[in-house]
Amino acid sequence: MKLLILQEKLKQGLNVVSKLTPKSLTLPILNNILLNTEKNFLELASTDLEIGIKYYILTKIEKQGKTTIPSQLFFNFINLLPNKNINIELKKNNLDIVCENYKTQINTISADEFPIIPILKETENITIDNSLFCESLKQIVDIASLSNSKPEISGVYLCFQKNQLIITATDSFRLGEKKIFFKKPNLLKKEYSLILPQKTIKYLINVFSEKTGEIKISFSLNQIMFESSLQETPHPEIQLVSKLVDGEYPNYQEIIPKKFTTEAVFKKEELLNQIKSASLFSKKTNEIKIKLNIKKGEMDICSSNNETGEYQSTLKSKIKGKNEEIIFNYKFLIDGLLNIKSSEVLFGFNGDSGPSVLKPVGDQSYIYIVMPIKT
Amino acid sequence: MKLLILQEKLKQGLNVVSKLTPKSLTLPILNNILLNTEKNFLELASTDLEIGIKYYILTKIEKQGKTTIPSQLFFNFINLLPNKNINIELKKNNLDIVCENYKTQINTISADEFPIIPILKETENITIDNSLFCESLKQIVDIASLSNSKPEISGVYLCFQKNQLIITATDSFRLGEKKIFFKKPNLLKKEYSLILPQKTIKYLINVFSEKTGEIKISFSLNQIMFESSLQETPHPEIQLVSKLVDGEYPNYQEIIPKKFTTEAVFKKEELLNQIKSASLFSKKTNEIKIKLNIKKGEMDICSSNNETGEYQSTLKSKIKGKNEEIIFNYKFLIDGLLNIKSSEVLFGFNGDSGPSVLKPVGDQSYIYIVMPIKT
Repeated sequence: MKLLILQEKLKQGLNVVSKLTPKSLTLPILNNILLNTEKNFLELASTDLEIGIKYYILTKIEKQGKTTIPSQLFFNFINLLPNKNINIELKKNNLDIVCENYKTQINTISADEFPIIPILKETENITIDNSLFCESLKQIVDIASLSNSKPEISGVYLCFQKNQLIITATDSFRLGEKKIFFKKPNLLKKEYSLILPQKTIKYLINVFSEKTGEIKISFSLNQIMFESSLQETPHPEIQLVSKLVDGEYPNYQEIIPKKFTTEAVFKKEELLNQIKSASLFSKKTNEIKIKLNIKKGEMDICSSNNETGEYQSTLKSKIKGKNEEIIFNYKFLIDGLLNIKSSEVLFGFNGDSGPSVLKPVGDQSYIYIVMPIKT
Repeated sequence: MKLLILQEKLKQGLNVVSKLTPKSLTLPILNNILLNTEKNFLELASTDLEIGIKYYILTKIEKQGKTTIPSQLFFNFINLLPNKNINIELKKNNLDIVCENYKTQINTISADEFPIIPILKETENITIDNSLFCESLKQIVDIASLSNSKPEISGVYLCFQKNQLIITATDSFRLGEKKIFFKKPNLLKKEYSLILPQKTIKYLINVFSEKTGEIKISFSLNQIMFESSLQETPHPEIQLVSKLVDGEYPNYQEIIPKKFTTEAVFKKEELLNQIKSASLFSKKTNEIKIKLNIKKGEMDICSSNNETGEYQSTLKSKIKGKNEEIIFNYKFLIDGLLNIKSSEVLFGFNGDSGPSVLKPVGDQSYIYIVMPIKT
């Protein structure tokens, strides 16, 4: 293997693939990235066995070949080089790197030891706007359960339908659902419902959210592939393949409340600030109490704690329905509000034990459901 | 105690004093800040028993009084309030805080339990430009020894002379010295040499470095006080009192080399980058080797490690003196270079076991001495 590459281009690629390399003590090869030449492209690849990523850079290949070198070391070293041409050559077990007055030989491990990252071919696929997709995933990803006792809700549910993509996550205390409405129906022959590991979604956001253009998504029975290309070439720039989570996602549609016993609209920032303030005086169970007073048109937020003191604040609004006193975990309310982008939010209640809802006003694409704490 | 204060003003004050409060399990009163009224001023104070800080805010005091409340809770709560007037009133053991539609009662601890923070009076003092003082401290503070086995070098040495202030720190492997030259001789009747805890210096930088104007420094036998005032009032805004470190600072002047066996000038960023790159291939002992070749006018930086590989890079310069091969701990070189502000740096050597020196070119106020690793 022998090639010439501009520092800036190599750095960009390493920035993507080096983020995936796990620190594996049992499988040292996973700490390495694969360098492989493919005609005029240098391919960089890394994997943690659940996710695999390939990054292609068009450059001057003088001699084909492949090898693997320590990901973090290579990335840190390339980062420190000047933005000039770098000569890279595999000599026996060392990778020789020369750039201006810098010379190094880095120890390699044979590319034969590197796991094969499958690329899905001839499967159904759709394309979707990259930044819309990533922004939508951000609104949902952190809601997934951290516990592994129910693997299916530890992941994020994606349901690709004719006219929309539904993205859902829950930890059984709260649930978030985001819809992306397609401008025209896609050409998928069937509906694809799948559960992706939370880690895949986080890595996906990390890799793609700064990119412009479209992302191509391909489906297979137990894998999914995400691809993006540079405008000037049809060759993919990034290919990310991930395993899916086994299992059936809970049929959550029935718990989404269709109506409320009480509801009101609030300014999001004010509501968020008052809940944050109340959280300072809540007990270790994170409890805060919401009191709805229809006549006064007021919602009080209260908390108290023997050690610190007592808190109360008031929000004015036109409140429809019944007077209620409901206890919430403040963390769940804050998480929901932070994922809402609009300046006004609808807060819908169903008594002290039914599911409450936070929804952006004027946006049908997002809903956040939260269960009260029962007393 | 009853008073009215603007949120923004209180927030600024709490931002300063709350940074000092330690999380003490044995002395809970130290987690609290003191609120005390003094005529038209609200005084905020906190202490960790080594350092004490007072912050004065001119505001509307309706009834004099004092109390203490939990620092972090109070700061977080005030931060979340809108920038409006806040009513604060002590009612029995609770501090009532009302601001627009927010109401809280925070549990207090009596001010009688709060340690007395001494204020130095009628002692000698000087004033010095605030930002120059803080910038100079930043260049030195991290060099102090982290070990407590020699308490005197765990602190930063300050020597106030007629025409200059000398600031020094060392951990016995390297030493940094910064001089502030006074435009005119000060009026001190004697020279003040003292050792300040590293923690005091860090807190001092934290509190004062954003301030404009001058800082007043007052001396006593075992304490030092730093004060700043607002332009519009002669009343101090901030008073910081710290204990000193007992002991005599080592007589380090004799180890500052007056001449070099070899010396050269390099571009700082290039030198720094090459040392950082070399560090990636150094052994666990942090060793990198510097080879000076007078004839070629080259300095090579080399490192190698069986696990990762080999590194070599070259810097060109007019090098005066003898050819040398010297081994350094790369961390010490990087620390020194990061404290140098000029674009060019003089690197002076004294063989493979004598002290080397890094100095900004065109600036006599800073010197950094580093000992090689003996082979």
